[in-house]
Order: sequence, then C-alpha cells, then structure tokens
Amino acid sequence: MVRWEPGTRERLYAAALELFATRGYEQTTAAEIAQSIGLSERTFFRHFADKREVLFAGQGEFLGVFLAGVADAPASAGPLELVTASLRAAATMFPDQRRSDVRLRQSVVAANAALGEREQHKMAVVAAALSGALRERGVDEPAATLAARSAITVFSVAVAQWVRPDEQRSMGELLERTTAELVALMTGATTAVSTTETMTAR
Amino acid sequence: MVRWEPGTRERLYAAALELFATRGYEQTTAAEIAQSIGLSERTFFRHFADKREVLFAGQGEFLGVFLAGVADAPASAGPLELVTASLRAAATMFPDQRRSDVRLRQSVVAANAALGEREQHKMAVVAAALSGALRERGVDEPAATLAARSAITVFSVAVAQWVRPDEQRSMGELLERTTAELVALMTGATTAVSTTETMTAR
Repeated sequence: MVRWEPGTRERLYAAALELFATRGYEQTTAAEIAQSIGLSERTFFRHFADKREVLFAGQGEFLGVFLAGVADAPASAGPLELVTASLRAAATMFPDQRRSDVRLRQSVVAANAALGEREQHKMAVVAAALSGALRERGVDEPAATLAARSAITVFSVAVAQWVRPDEQRSMGELLERTTAELVALMTGATTAVSTTETMTAR
Repeated sequence: MVRWEPGTRERLYAAALELFATRGYEQTTAAEIAQSIGLSERTFFRHFADKREVLFAGQGEFLGVFLAGVADAPASAGPLELVTASLRAAATMFPDQRRSDVRLRQSVVAANAALGEREQHKMAVVAAALSGALRERGVDEPAATLAARSAITVFSVAVAQWVRPDEQRSMGELLERTTAELVALMTGATTAVSTTETMTAR
C-alpha cells in the first residue's frame, strides 16, 4: 500500500524550486530534489512525471480559473468586461503569501530557454481557450482572439511586475493598473508623455 | 567550386511547401524535397540547415523589417504610432503575390504542434526586440512591452485573416482594421454590439 503523506507534493515543489534556483535547473535531478528533503526518487515520481513537471503541474486548474472568471461574468458583459472578470479570477491564484515561491519559479523559468518556450506555450494555450470561451459568450472574431490575447499580455506583464524585488502591490491591483495602462495606450493617452520625453532627449 | 544557381533557394522553398502540404511535414525528407525538382540532397543542405529551417529561414530579416518601421517613425511618435509604423513596415513583406505561399506555409505550421510552438517563439522574439526598440525611443515600461505585444497580437490576427480562402483585402488594410478593432475593444466601443448579441441569444 502506498501511504499518501499530506504535504509531500508541496514539500517536493519547494525543494525543487530551491535547488533549481541555487544549483540551476539543468544541474538538478529528480533524485536530488527528493533526497534534499529525505525522500526517495520513487516518491518524487509518484507526484511528478519529471522535474520539468514540477514547474508546470496544475496547468489544467490554472486554465480552469481563467475560464471560471468568464463563466461567472454577468450575461450583459462585453468582451472587455469578460476578460477583466477572467483576470480578476486569475488574481486569486496569486495571494501575497505565494509571491516568494512564484518569484523563485519565474527566475528559474527565465534562466532556461526551453522552460521559457514551455511557459510561452502554456500561456498560448490559455489564450486559445479563453478566446473560445469568449466566442461561446457571443463575442465575434477577431474581437474574441484580440481580447483573449490582450488579457494574456496584461497577465504576463502584471506577473513580471508582481515578482519584482520590493514590489508590495497585490496581483489584483497590478492587473487592474496594467489593464488601465493598455487601455490608455490604445486610446493614445500616454502618447503625450512619451513625446515630451523624446523631445527632451534631443 | 560550388556553382550558385540563382533561384535555387526559392525553388527549394516552393518544392518544400508543396510536399509539406500534400504529404505532411513529418513524412517529407530534405532529400525528397531536393529530388522533387531534380536536385541533390547536398544542394538542399547548401541552402538550408534542415527541413524545418525552410519554414523559418529569413527570421533575422523578418525581425529587421519590424524594427526598421520603428526606426523610420518621426521623433514625435508615441508608443501607438511607433508600433503602427512597425506594422506598416511589416505589411510590405506580404504583397498579394505572396499570399498563396504564405497560406500554404501557415497551413503546414498549424498542422504540426512543434512547428506551432516554434512560430510562437519566433513572434515572441519579435515582440521582445520591438519592446526594446520602443524603450530606446523613450517609451517607459510597462507601456513598451504592452505596445509591442499588442502589435504582435494584431499582426498574428491579421495574417490569419489574410490567408483565409477568398480573402481579397491587402495585408496593409487588414493590419489597419485589426488595430482599429483592438482600439475599439479596449475603449469598450464593441461592448454594445456584443451585449445585443448575448441578449438576442437568450
């Protein structure tokens, strides 16, 4: 009988992040991750298919939260409201107590080209599913794809900001600010600022 | 002495697209591509590193055109104008006479998951370089990243439209329309339409 120890998966995740960040992802094996917290390689493979999977586990749930945000939005919501609801739901996956773990994870992913491509692919999958959910809510193409990809752009920029050293603002606040920034950009509201900077630089 | 036959590269490209589209990418070898137009495998490898490279050759020039658009924009241009200039430059790479080749290429890339990921990566590289060019023009973060990624979103959506069967509009026109659609979306201008549709559907 396999005894399922509660918290083992979480401990393996924390141990993997720690080793990936200090020794490097390439230089760390599944056996070393397990051994660093007194577990066997076999235990590791009961929880994760491989060491990469530690960084990309729970992708289905991750996607599900984005889609739940759309599903829970009121029937009257237009495309911008639908993706805003999706982002608001996504923000709940990033409470402040997860910030240091996510920071570590992002630094590991950023340091390895293949992991970076895997992360891009993960977000492209979310964007594709989100645009499908928007179409089901009556949003036409290309608006559905434009809105979904814009939401993913906002999400990626907000996460990158959220994990910066000394950043104190919540993920919810950063998502809201980044959305506002994108809206301002598209309406040309930030053009004046940039023009001034360019002129000063001359 | 290697004799450089003018047009060989272009003929190999056309032959590869044809075979990838009819037989499938996986099922086609470099040797078969060369032989289909009476050339040797050795000749193929003088022009392309491997069969995948046929689909992604010229990536440096591709990126360069996006950046040239920014470089040629007037000093007074804000972030939205800068990326619009970049897209206008990119449109010149898609004259109507290239439409059937690009259509074939897109169908090959869409049919193979690994090629799709490679294409995503290619566009992510363009987005990163474009945001760098915007920062050099005095655009702050996160505006530079938001504007660059939005431009790539617009580009991808416009290309997908451009290669549709029976599509007649030019790439320039589709880029302009898609940009306008994104702006309308972000300002909530299309919300009313979508709400009406949702209400009708109830």
